Amino acid sequence: MSKISEDIILIDGLEYCNWNRNLLENAHLAGITAIHATLVYWENTEQSFEKINYWNKLFKEHRDIIVHARNTKDITDAKENNKVAIIFGFQNSAPIANDIFLVEKFFDAGLRFMQLTYNNQTPLGGGCFEPKDSGVSRFGHAVIEEMNRLGMIVDLSHAGKQTCLDAINISKKPVAISHANPSFFHKSIRNIDKDVLKKLVNNNGFIGLSLYPYHLKNLGKCTEEDFCTMIKQLINIIGDNNIGIGSDLCLNWPDEVVMWMRNGQWTKKIDYGESKDQNPKWPELPSWYKQPSDIKKLYSTMCKYDISEKTAEKIIGLNWLNFMKNHF
Amino acid sequence: MSKISEDIILIDGLEYCNWNRNLLENAHLAGITAIHATLVYWENTEQSFEKINYWNKLFKEHRDIIVHARNTKDITDAKENNKVAIIFGFQNSAPIANDIFLVEKFFDAGLRFMQLTYNNQTPLGGGCFEPKDSGVSRFGHAVIEEMNRLGMIVDLSHAGKQTCLDAINISKKPVAISHANPSFFHKSIRNIDKDVLKKLVNNNGFIGLSLYPYHLKNLGKCTEEDFCTMIKQLINIIGDNNIGIGSDLCLNWPDEVVMWMRNGQWTKKIDYGESKDQNPKWPELPSWYKQPSDIKKLYSTMCKYDISEKTAEKIIGLNWLNFMKNHF
Repeated sequence: MSKISEDIILIDGLEYCNWNRNLLENAHLAGITAIHATLVYWENTEQSFEKINYWNKLFKEHRDIIVHARNTKDITDAKENNKVAIIFGFQNSAPIANDIFLVEKFFDAGLRFMQLTYNNQTPLGGGCFEPKDSGVSRFGHAVIEEMNRLGMIVDLSHAGKQTCLDAINISKKPVAISHANPSFFHKSIRNIDKDVLKKLVNNNGFIGLSLYPYHLKNLGKCTEEDFCTMIKQLINIIGDNNIGIGSDLCLNWPDEVVMWMRNGQWTKKIDYGESKDQNPKWPELPSWYKQPSDIKKLYSTMCKYDISEKTAEKIIGLNWLNFMKNHF
Repeated sequence: MSKISEDIILIDGLEYCNWNRNLLENAHLAGITAIHATLVYWENTEQSFEKINYWNKLFKEHRDIIVHARNTKDITDAKENNKVAIIFGFQNSAPIANDIFLVEKFFDAGLRFMQLTYNNQTPLGGGCFEPKDSGVSRFGHAVIEEMNRLGMIVDLSHAGKQTCLDAINISKKPVAISHANPSFFHKSIRNIDKDVLKKLVNNNGFIGLSLYPYHLKNLGKCTEEDFCTMIKQLINIIGDNNIGIGSDLCLNWPDEVVMWMRNGQWTKKIDYGESKDQNPKWPELPSWYKQPSDIKKLYSTMCKYDISEKTAEKIIGLNWLNFMKNHF
């Protein structure tokens, strides 16, 4: 098994954890360079600014091991200073409601990723769980232009297929699907069809591969070999420059949070998402990917399963960094 | 010209005015029974509750001539007590954001009409100005059920065509298009095609005819005769029980407000709506419909142009009252 060099850049393109010292130390000890951390899903404008305040408190409390990244220089500086860089992202556009001027306000507060939708339709576009996908709306179009202008990454995770295709067309800068897998690996509402992946990458877009069980072949029983085989198949289709990891680790939350993620306050019934489980809880994670530090092991695993060290290094962080350099 | 009896019920199914004593007295002196008053367009939850507080202040200040109607008995009581009943409506679903529980909170505060959309896409459905109309979304479906349960009227003005058709299907109670005209009268994005009108009325739905210039044949030059001819043509198609007036009078606002209605804060460019005027101002109203009291004259005008007194009486208010009785 390849020994990982300390120079290797490890970037997780999406985690939603209830961060505490233990989890932050777990990431820090593994030498993780940067994590794109989800701040909100359904929260409104005010609640979203409060989450930023909360994170600013975390940055003070844990200043010895984490730092807020507003640009890619902050990420490379963090690497040099042996800290984990945290990049802010929203998994929904609820925080901006109908107000394009809020995009810049959140950008100024540090936001660097925003999803147009989270499962459901928003004023910007269609969600992946909607029976009919509007594609990108008038407001969505205007917001993408504004995100391009500022240098905020358009994240199409949880968007409908037409919305993905429209956004790829509209965006003047490359867009990301921060956390999903190809549909050929596991057929799931959240995973991405080959035609979208090709169009995404033809426009220099990016996909972060997910470890969330509902996105994996055989769910939590997915093997490292299966995951690496998928990566190799994907490389055959789109090359190895536009692929990273977006683990979608959701740690240290009670089971109620997974229900809230699915239901927010948009329905009085219960929506179970892609779970068949009527007693909803967090799905069982693959034994080999249960904590932030496991991204480091994944590098070695890729090498073990015949992915070249060079390619593994790109996928485990370098590609994300280069992609982000196009934006901020 | 027929002399209007004091017993006749006059209901205006939509006005958005910057109400002051003069305007309220104008409505009161004409003997208007009820007005569905628009409170908000783009306002968020908090701002919308503030508008309700503002109205509650108006009810106190002008308690001699207006009263808040929470149900149709309040409307008939107002008529007996020689007051104008005010019914609250939202021209957008922005106030409920993504939160179905807010529907009941606003209902409890008096809200009785809510549009799913205002021109643009919302989390509930597609707007009439969108290039692609999603139809009613998952959240939209849930909200319509909740509005049905509470007795809040689903208003499809400013919705896209597919969203109208979906909502008519989904709603267990009849829905309204509170202010629009048939497309055959004047081709406009906001006016309604015959197939939608038929489906609407087959499901006991309702249309309030608009006096807003962009909805009128020859805009502000529309004649009373043209308007009454349209009514007669419409009666031939859908009968005379499901038609009322929704004047869409927007009075006592500066020109900036019409721009705000079109643009809210959703675009940094300027959207001119259906206006060709690059120096945007309120459109010139028809000379015969410039103030709330003109609804009373419209009754006589209808009779003059060969609409029977009985039918005119229904259209000028009785139909709206009967329709509302199905809800609250």
